[in-house]
Amino acid sequence: MSTTTNPVVLLPPEKMPKQWINLVPYIGYDLPLISPQTLEPGTPEEAMMIFSKDCVLQEVSQEPAIDIPDELREMYYYANRPTPLVRALRLEKAIGIDADTDGIKIYYKNESVSPAGSHKTNTALAQAYYARKNGIECLATETGAGQWGSALSYACALFGLKCRVYMVRASYKQKPYRGILMRTYGAEVWPSPSDQTDVGNTFLEQDPDHPGSLGIAISEAVEDCIKHNDNTRYSLGSVVNHVVLHQTIIGQEAKAQMEMLGEYPDIIIACHGGGSNFSGLTFPFLIDKIEDRKPDLRIIAAEPTAAPKLTKGVYTFDYGDTGHFAPIVKMYTIGSSFVPSPIHAGGLRYHGASPLVSMALNKGLIEADMLKQTEVIEAGVTFARTEGFPPAPESCHAVLEAIKQAKAAKENRENKIILFNLSGHGYFDLGAYQAYLDGNLEDFELPTAQIKESLKSLPQVSFG
Amino acid sequence: MSTTTNPVVLLPPEKMPKQWINLVPYIGYDLPLISPQTLEPGTPEEAMMIFSKDCVLQEVSQEPAIDIPDELREMYYYANRPTPLVRALRLEKAIGIDADTDGIKIYYKNESVSPAGSHKTNTALAQAYYARKNGIECLATETGAGQWGSALSYACALFGLKCRVYMVRASYKQKPYRGILMRTYGAEVWPSPSDQTDVGNTFLEQDPDHPGSLGIAISEAVEDCIKHNDNTRYSLGSVVNHVVLHQTIIGQEAKAQMEMLGEYPDIIIACHGGGSNFSGLTFPFLIDKIEDRKPDLRIIAAEPTAAPKLTKGVYTFDYGDTGHFAPIVKMYTIGSSFVPSPIHAGGLRYHGASPLVSMALNKGLIEADMLKQTEVIEAGVTFARTEGFPPAPESCHAVLEAIKQAKAAKENRENKIILFNLSGHGYFDLGAYQAYLDGNLEDFELPTAQIKESLKSLPQVSFG
Repeated sequence: MSTTTNPVVLLPPEKMPKQWINLVPYIGYDLPLISPQTLEPGTPEEAMMIFSKDCVLQEVSQEPAIDIPDELREMYYYANRPTPLVRALRLEKAIGIDADTDGIKIYYKNESVSPAGSHKTNTALAQAYYARKNGIECLATETGAGQWGSALSYACALFGLKCRVYMVRASYKQKPYRGILMRTYGAEVWPSPSDQTDVGNTFLEQDPDHPGSLGIAISEAVEDCIKHNDNTRYSLGSVVNHVVLHQTIIGQEAKAQMEMLGEYPDIIIACHGGGSNFSGLTFPFLIDKIEDRKPDLRIIAAEPTAAPKLTKGVYTFDYGDTGHFAPIVKMYTIGSSFVPSPIHAGGLRYHGASPLVSMALNKGLIEADMLKQTEVIEAGVTFARTEGFPPAPESCHAVLEAIKQAKAAKENRENKIILFNLSGHGYFDLGAYQAYLDGNLEDFELPTAQIKESLKSLPQVSFG
Repeated sequence: MSTTTNPVVLLPPEKMPKQWINLVPYIGYDLPLISPQTLEPGTPEEAMMIFSKDCVLQEVSQEPAIDIPDELREMYYYANRPTPLVRALRLEKAIGIDADTDGIKIYYKNESVSPAGSHKTNTALAQAYYARKNGIECLATETGAGQWGSALSYACALFGLKCRVYMVRASYKQKPYRGILMRTYGAEVWPSPSDQTDVGNTFLEQDPDHPGSLGIAISEAVEDCIKHNDNTRYSLGSVVNHVVLHQTIIGQEAKAQMEMLGEYPDIIIACHGGGSNFSGLTFPFLIDKIEDRKPDLRIIAAEPTAAPKLTKGVYTFDYGDTGHFAPIVKMYTIGSSFVPSPIHAGGLRYHGASPLVSMALNKGLIEADMLKQTEVIEAGVTFARTEGFPPAPESCHAVLEAIKQAKAAKENRENKIILFNLSGHGYFDLGAYQAYLDGNLEDFELPTAQIKESLKSLPQVSFG
């Protein structure tokens, strides 16, 4: 080789987006947050008891774009934004793709370069910024695998806020370094269910070693927020509109980076838990499909067999959390009492999907695919040995789906440009890799009966 | 704030250095590698039994600069080079520095963005490249904290080589995720002393749970290389000239980035174990001091009290390893049988210093300072809460020294630009942070008596 190829596409820092993109007006979303107490539409004022005021205003905004404040953009620089877009040349080769003869290329947006290790930083910094602006002193939150808790702890450290984190116990045990990282940033961290809240104590009475769920941990964090409402608000790492909004910086950057190459993807892939990294990468492209500039664009959400709300759930109003403290929204759900198997991709264990993602799926604008844990982590090992680092178990879903789609395109002799979101690194999730390498990694059955049972306790919402 | 400040200085990718800088001719280094068997100068051919041929040629080169091959530069892009230079605005503020009134600025070169987590990737990729070029199929190595083992495992995965790693047992236990990461890249990993080698078995007989040392682990890796000499060579992560050479990409980039700002540092700081990240950042600047363009430049090596070879060692010929397999070199040493306390900065536990660093210290071109573990990790926590990520315990030494120098400059009312090397992240070293946060972190006494004992067994080299 006599010339140097650079597979990394860097966006010039001054080209970092100055606005977030709001899918709400594009897709015609106009559903309210429903109060879990009254089962009626809640007011923005009620929501401001839970979320910071500016976040609530963004939650209900119908504006197509919202400015990113300058001070926040400065923090995004600190957080290693813009993130790289990388041509996965070595992964392509390893799975038998030759771009020249096959006409297939794989790119990934590398959100793992964030200091807290994932895309979660994008909304964590925004929420901490608005909390401080709104005079809030502390943010309470839940975390599954710990990506979100790390990101919010990081953001609170940078904006001088306190942070209290309820971490799903199964993940707290699987990923001990996550808790230490949060404490290093100055946060207080408890395994959930914890003895800090009434709802936590209820579950601890049933089982002192309860593995927890995101639904329970959300309830704890919201209860904490309500109990300390003079100075505390709740902060959510996924699902709701304002979080999805903040994440659209990912897709806008990726779009600009693809433009630098003169390319546009045919297939866009992201893993899906609550929907934040998925929305973040795909929504800026989805608009092109909605407005018929890219009618053939395929957008695929990759989810685990263990918590398959997009592929096996129903589209209806459901509680956001197990304890019924958080607002009710219309979404694809497998029921708020669903407790998923302890897969390593803890961030994908949530029972519901973002209302905006759910609406997009219901309108046929996006697709979903369900993947098994062993194949997912195997894809992560392939990625690590070719592209150079182990993805988070969540992100491994996107890697596997990208490999599947590339192989399918090759079989069908189709030219395809594939773009996926590498939402986070797996440095804190190496237990999953160890289990795989030692041959101890489990697959879990599709939880059909459990989903059926869990869907019996949907709220009886009269709205709409 | 109405405008956006970007504290991150990115070097345009095409400006990544095309050559490494060789300090050897600048400083007048002409000492040979001495054979541990004959105690006489060895030949390059003998050295080629241990190291890859091209690395030996670089080891003895008197050329002031050596080309970086194109294919290797491509891999450097994959490894996130050029790395960012960051103005530590938030750290400055936290320690009471106001650049405008105090005239003090702190910058750090962020080598932690490498996929394997540290600067070690720079020489790992180079050594794997040359090994493959020279027809070698496997590299054997030792690792302390695991940064080097991770980097070499990563590099071997990318160049299609096998990799066998002997990891100091104390670190293997402290940092379990390091071993899993190496295995994820496809390497074989053993805690050292191991049962894989004669030297390992000798130490295991003394103590089945022997904590190990870099000196012992090096012996194991060299023995492995000699036993499998048909297809295996040994790979060293620090100390020797060719490693130091590969690392000079760091300082060259930093110099170019400082030039983009119109600045030149007054004080340059790096932690010091064997000397690779220290040399890498400082040697391209040191040349300016040697050639009298920057006579007042201060260059400071920060080392732990637990293994203080630069501050408390002697400058003499000593064995490179405990088992006396590796070449003898002239260096600052506290004796090859020295077994340091199990500090978390495992990468700084080596008994000797790079011959080139040693010569620079002996000539009064650089300084050294000795730091305590508790203060070191405390500095890391301060860094994490301001700059956004926990540094490796090794790198925390550089952080603390930078804070000390900044505070001293403020007290003396001196304008100073300080540059330090953030050589790696601490995501795999969070045990150190946990111990600090829980109040369990130990300090160790200066090992004066142990050093005196260890220095009794220096080799009787007649050369020079």
